[in-house]
Amino acid sequence: MCVYACMCDAPPGAMLARRTVGLVSRGGPPLTPRSPPGRSVQRMMAEKVLTVDTMNSCVKKVEYAVRGPIVLRAVQIEKELKEGVQKPFSEVIKANIGDAHAMGQQPITFFRQVLAMCSYPELLDDDRFPEDAKGRARRILQGCGGQSIGAYSASQGIECVRQDVARYVERRDGGVPSDPDNIYLTTGASDGIVTMLKLLVAGEGRSRTGVMISIPQYPLYSAALAELGAVQVNYFLNEERCWSLDVSELRRALADARRHCNPRALCIINPGNPTGQVQSRQCIEDVIRFAAKERLFLMADEVYQDNVYAEGCEFHSFKKVLFEMGPEFSSTVELASFHSTSKCYMGECGFRGGYMEVVNMDPEVKAQLTKLVSVRLCPPVPGQALMDLVVNPPQPGEPSYSTFIRERKATLSSLAERARLTEQILNTVPGIACNPVQGAMYSFPRVTLPARAIRERGQAPDMFYCMKLLEETGICLVPGSGFGQRDGTFHFRMTILPPTDKLKILLSKVKDFHQRFIQQYS
Amino acid sequence: MCVYACMCDAPPGAMLARRTVGLVSRGGPPLTPRSPPGRSVQRMMAEKVLTVDTMNSCVKKVEYAVRGPIVLRAVQIEKELKEGVQKPFSEVIKANIGDAHAMGQQPITFFRQVLAMCSYPELLDDDRFPEDAKGRARRILQGCGGQSIGAYSASQGIECVRQDVARYVERRDGGVPSDPDNIYLTTGASDGIVTMLKLLVAGEGRSRTGVMISIPQYPLYSAALAELGAVQVNYFLNEERCWSLDVSELRRALADARRHCNPRALCIINPGNPTGQVQSRQCIEDVIRFAAKERLFLMADEVYQDNVYAEGCEFHSFKKVLFEMGPEFSSTVELASFHSTSKCYMGECGFRGGYMEVVNMDPEVKAQLTKLVSVRLCPPVPGQALMDLVVNPPQPGEPSYSTFIRERKATLSSLAERARLTEQILNTVPGIACNPVQGAMYSFPRVTLPARAIRERGQAPDMFYCMKLLEETGICLVPGSGFGQRDGTFHFRMTILPPTDKLKILLSKVKDFHQRFIQQYS
Repeated sequence: MCVYACMCDAPPGAMLARRTVGLVSRGGPPLTPRSPPGRSVQRMMAEKVLTVDTMNSCVKKVEYAVRGPIVLRAVQIEKELKEGVQKPFSEVIKANIGDAHAMGQQPITFFRQVLAMCSYPELLDDDRFPEDAKGRARRILQGCGGQSIGAYSASQGIECVRQDVARYVERRDGGVPSDPDNIYLTTGASDGIVTMLKLLVAGEGRSRTGVMISIPQYPLYSAALAELGAVQVNYFLNEERCWSLDVSELRRALADARRHCNPRALCIINPGNPTGQVQSRQCIEDVIRFAAKERLFLMADEVYQDNVYAEGCEFHSFKKVLFEMGPEFSSTVELASFHSTSKCYMGECGFRGGYMEVVNMDPEVKAQLTKLVSVRLCPPVPGQALMDLVVNPPQPGEPSYSTFIRERKATLSSLAERARLTEQILNTVPGIACNPVQGAMYSFPRVTLPARAIRERGQAPDMFYCMKLLEETGICLVPGSGFGQRDGTFHFRMTILPPTDKLKILLSKVKDFHQRFIQQYS
Repeated sequence: MCVYACMCDAPPGAMLARRTVGLVSRGGPPLTPRSPPGRSVQRMMAEKVLTVDTMNSCVKKVEYAVRGPIVLRAVQIEKELKEGVQKPFSEVIKANIGDAHAMGQQPITFFRQVLAMCSYPELLDDDRFPEDAKGRARRILQGCGGQSIGAYSASQGIECVRQDVARYVERRDGGVPSDPDNIYLTTGASDGIVTMLKLLVAGEGRSRTGVMISIPQYPLYSAALAELGAVQVNYFLNEERCWSLDVSELRRALADARRHCNPRALCIINPGNPTGQVQSRQCIEDVIRFAAKERLFLMADEVYQDNVYAEGCEFHSFKKVLFEMGPEFSSTVELASFHSTSKCYMGECGFRGGYMEVVNMDPEVKAQLTKLVSVRLCPPVPGQALMDLVVNPPQPGEPSYSTFIRERKATLSSLAERARLTEQILNTVPGIACNPVQGAMYSFPRVTLPARAIRERGQAPDMFYCMKLLEETGICLVPGSGFGQRDGTFHFRMTILPPTDKLKILLSKVKDFHQRFIQQYS
């Protein structure tokens, strides 16, 4: 039996001290198993077995700001509005999370037609659906046990879907080969990322696995590392240079980390969340060289690969760059890259579709990975079907092609417009400085807060700022502290997803609020 | 930062010893971070960062027999058959996993109609769909952000679905109240079970959390406990008494366990997997009294709650019995119960729908649970929609009612027939003894193996038996060792899911094989 010794809360001494407290500790069960003689059953039963004192202390350390206190309060306010409570606004605008459909984005018709037929195959005989959609539905159903999306799939994912993913990756990467056996379908990208981190975490004390993550980061990473008890190793993105990644900063962070842990993995989010930067090919190459030299497992979170807006910017996958660097790198550097149905032009978050591709993974580790994912049986099959459509969309000459292209283009160009608009308007506000939103779905502007707003508050100053914004305007953003930021700087993350008209109103409300806030606390 | 010290593999001394080996260890990266001077970059790069020696050692201990080596071989054989390799059979019959649709069970029409409309809401205007199905689809869509199942839901699940679940639980349990705030929608039941175990695991050494599970068990439990580094505490079901649960055995197991860990939770699967027993009301009451007295958190895996076949057997939920026992118990005993869309008459495994209900959970722990599930954003929304339909099916007077009842009844009575058939035929085989399949979806017969088959094999005797069965007949079963069994006894788990005709052939092949096997090794 595997035994962890969790030392999250206190040194072993403290643990022992608590043991002697036994039954008198706040709400906690005894650490000594048997109840002391004379203790009434009544009293004992009033105490919970599972309390915050006796639960997994690593779980307690988990934080996930994107759905944190601000969002809980936003949901409350929505209820209050419904109940008729008077507010200075009539609706809550949730710009806290990259949830495109919730903000009114329409799904791709073709995708939904195929999914409807997969759900209810009688529709395959319906004239309303185009032949290419029927063909895709038939192919997916043929890949399912009993031709039903209600059957479990292979734990790694439906074979024909993995084949389609591999072909997509090859097209995307200019012919770099991709093996369906290296594709794992996942429950959203989050699932793949957590699974990979789970494999990587080992050792104890100074040998404990460290994982390098960007600051600002997407808090899935910090949450997963906290839960796994791994060491989070921060490297800072360069806000002054449009949130770019400097290898010198990677070097600094790694050297620091090696004093107290064993850094083994480097996570990159490109295009960046929450920071919206798009990495240059050169930068990616530098990062790969660094990972190769320093022997780090690379994890490339590429879920925004279609969300590139800024002129001169282009998405380069880590895998493509790796293979262009020649066999010295392409046959050695270990890489896992992640994609999802939730972002890009699809925005199909609710389906929890995704995949990861592993490159140069040790075959024995891969067998362990396959075993590990089998415990959860399989990723949701409708999400797998959707992932298949994303990697195998209508082709020129097929009946759905023109509609598909029109819908995709409309969404992506509108997002590009909203990215520009966000940057422009925010930069007209004195005290707000917003880098270009080159890609992804968020702005992460820096706000200069008055000293009086920074002192004297019982919470992080940017949390205070965002909470006040929510109460006064109904706009729900996430404070920068939820993603990490350099000490003394403050930011918020705002999605660019509200429809253009609403976004303009939102930005002008943020502007007014900020000016009032500055006045109030100056 | 939270630091686990994993002592799965070796004592700290061994760890240190390995550190000195550094770069020369098999395929492993150095534990000392920098490469020794003079070492060629070439050679260093040939070694993987992530190897079985350097990966998470708890993950290595995970085993999941339902998709283990037997199934991998079955998939290989299928490929060989496709490639024209000659075998003594023409197809592989997978009776290893409770995957009803893969075995030909048809989905419930109403469920799939609603799901099709949720996927492609244009179908709401289609005359082919009945009004009750349209009403359900509209209600679900109204509960979704932007009225799209492509939006994220609340992490705990769509509110109106949780309300429907609570009302279902109340109906099922004869009016015992259920609060939607205590319902968490999950990604299949597995997800809920693992999440609850995650909360419960704490402490180190002799204070490490122990979790009591039945033997035989469903290997999700052992796998999750291995991954979390918790202590698995086995209690044995009584095969002689139809796999019933004896409280005296719980007492024995608990007393033993308290010598080396801190047992805090008791898991029950009812109806039983893999053993097919249905617990009596009295037994459940006894278990609850035991848990209350011994201060154990109860986890009731009730995913087979509609799968009860044997005369005189009835499903009683732990929650209902708990509340019938009066406030002394109903206001104190902590319980989490689990349900799923994957089993019963639905068999919709691929959707990964499920829910758990928590009872008497400490409010602070509940807040931690809500936070923890938020990191994964939300369970798949199509699965949530399906769960809603399961708990809110067509009602008398609605247009889909009679079809729904007919379909459900057909499935359940056919399963009951197959349960009887399985028991009967297996018990005609000398050397096979099968308890009645009172419920769930599996038989777990005991096979008496000749001494020569038990000795001289490089693997578990029942694995050898099942592998040979697969090679000779194409029938894929899971050896009892994958679920746990008393030393010296051997079993296999076989689903009752193949259609009746096929099941008869399968059973007669098992019979022939067993007789041949006995002859060969006697």
